[in-house]
Amino acid sequence: MPRFFIDPPDICGGAAHIRGKDAEHLRVLRVRPGELVTLCDGKGTDYLCRLLALGPDSAEAEIMSSAPSETEPGLSCTVYAGLPKGERADFIVQKCVELGAAGVVFFLSERCVARPDGAGLKKKLERWNKIAEEASKQSGRGVIPSVGFAASFAEMLRGASAAEAGFFLWEEERKPENNIKAALERAGSFGTAAVVAGPEGGFERREAESAAEAGLVPVTLGPRILRCETAPLCALTALLYHSGDLGYGKTAG
Amino acid sequence: MPRFFIDPPDICGGAAHIRGKDAEHLRVLRVRPGELVTLCDGKGTDYLCRLLALGPDSAEAEIMSSAPSETEPGLSCTVYAGLPKGERADFIVQKCVELGAAGVVFFLSERCVARPDGAGLKKKLERWNKIAEEASKQSGRGVIPSVGFAASFAEMLRGASAAEAGFFLWEEERKPENNIKAALERAGSFGTAAVVAGPEGGFERREAESAAEAGLVPVTLGPRILRCETAPLCALTALLYHSGDLGYGKTAG
Repeated sequence: MPRFFIDPPDICGGAAHIRGKDAEHLRVLRVRPGELVTLCDGKGTDYLCRLLALGPDSAEAEIMSSAPSETEPGLSCTVYAGLPKGERADFIVQKCVELGAAGVVFFLSERCVARPDGAGLKKKLERWNKIAEEASKQSGRGVIPSVGFAASFAEMLRGASAAEAGFFLWEEERKPENNIKAALERAGSFGTAAVVAGPEGGFERREAESAAEAGLVPVTLGPRILRCETAPLCALTALLYHSGDLGYGKTAG
Repeated sequence: MPRFFIDPPDICGGAAHIRGKDAEHLRVLRVRPGELVTLCDGKGTDYLCRLLALGPDSAEAEIMSSAPSETEPGLSCTVYAGLPKGERADFIVQKCVELGAAGVVFFLSERCVARPDGAGLKKKLERWNKIAEEASKQSGRGVIPSVGFAASFAEMLRGASAAEAGFFLWEEERKPENNIKAALERAGSFGTAAVVAGPEGGFERREAESAAEAGLVPVTLGPRILRCETAPLCALTALLYHSGDLGYGKTAG
C-alpha cells in the first residue's frame, strides 16, 4: 500500500485534505478513489485512509484508523556530534536518520575546524533538515527528525544530560566497565538517550571532564580509531541494538 | 609511540629492516636511534622495536618483543555485499575496515545494476584494496583486510556458509526470533562470522531461500529501510557489539 508524509494541518477530524505535490504523488502512484493509502503526519502517527476524490491538484480521503508509525524505534535517541568539516555532517544526518535517531544536534567544541558564521549556519541547518526529510522518507520513518545546533558546549551538555541515559564517546576511556556494551547493560531501562561524539580531532580532556560532571557516562567503542562520521553511527547502532529496536515487535510510545 | 605498517618480509630474525617510504616515515615522525617504535606486519602482529640506525632511505631496528595487535577484534567477521553502484562500494569498504571487518567480498545477485567486465573488475578490486589499506592505517588496525569478489551467488554462499555463524540480511524477514539480536543471542559462541547484505534493490525471494538452504540464518535489522551501503555497517556493528569487540579487554587469537 502506498505510504507517504502529509503536512499535519491537512489532517482534520475524520478527513485528510491532500494538496499540491501530495495530490500529484497520489496520481503518480495511480491510487484511485475507493483505494487505501497510508498517510503519515511526520510526527509518529500513520493514518490508514480511503481515497474519496482526486482532483487535478487536491484530493480528499476518509481516515479509517490511525496508529503510531510501526517504523519508529521504541528508544528515542538523539545524536550530538561535534561539527565536522564539509560533507561529513551531511553524511551523519543521512545515516543517523536512516538508522533511527530521534534527532541530530551539531555543536562546536575546542577542536572543531568548521566554525560557520550566522548566515552560513542558517544555510547549513536548512540543508541538513532537507537531508533529514529525504532520509526519513526513503527509510520509511514515521517522524522527520529535526537537525539542530547547540550554540555552546555547555548548551549541548544541558541537552544531552536531559535524556534518561547520556553517553559521551571518549577516545581515552580504557576502563572495561566503560566499554559501550558494559555501560549500556549497567544503565538499565531507559526510553530516551543521548550519544555525544566529537569532531575530527576528538575531545579535549577538560571537555570529557565537563561531560562527566554533567552526568554523561564516558564510553569507548574500542581500540580502532573511528572517523568522526563513523563513531556516531556505530554508537547509535549499539544503542538501538541494545534496546531491541533493530527488529520487529517493538513500537514507539 | 609511533606505530606503522611494514612489509612482512622486512621482519627477519630479531631485526627489522626498514626501507623506502617506511624509513622516510620514521624521519617524518622524528624517531631517533635508541627510541622505540611499533611496527605492524599487517597480518595481526605488532613488533615493539628499538631503532638502531637511520640512513637516508633505510633503517635498522632491533625487535624487543612481539604480540598480537591489540586493535584487532576477537571476532573475525567477513562482510559479503551485493555489488552496488559507484561510490557506495568504496564507502562499504572504508567503513567496514574501520569498524573491524576481517574482509569484504562483493558479489553479483539478481538485482545488481553494476556488472563490471573483467578489466573493470580488476581495476575496482585494486581501488577497493587501496581503500582498505588506507582505512586500515587510519584506524590503527593490525591487519589489512582484503577485498575480494565472488564470481557467482553460489560461490558467495559457499564462502559465507564456511564461517561458524552466517547471517543473511533479508528484508522480508518478520519473525521476532530472527531479529538480529535474537538470532545472535541464539547463535551461542563463535569466532568467525559472515554477514551477507544485498545490493540496492535487495534480494529475490529465491536468493533468500538458497541462503537458508546453505545454512545462513535470515535476519532483519528492523522496519526502517536501510540503504545498501548502510545495512552492512549496521549488521557488522551489531555483531562486534554482541561479541564484546566494541571495547577494550579482548584481543584476537
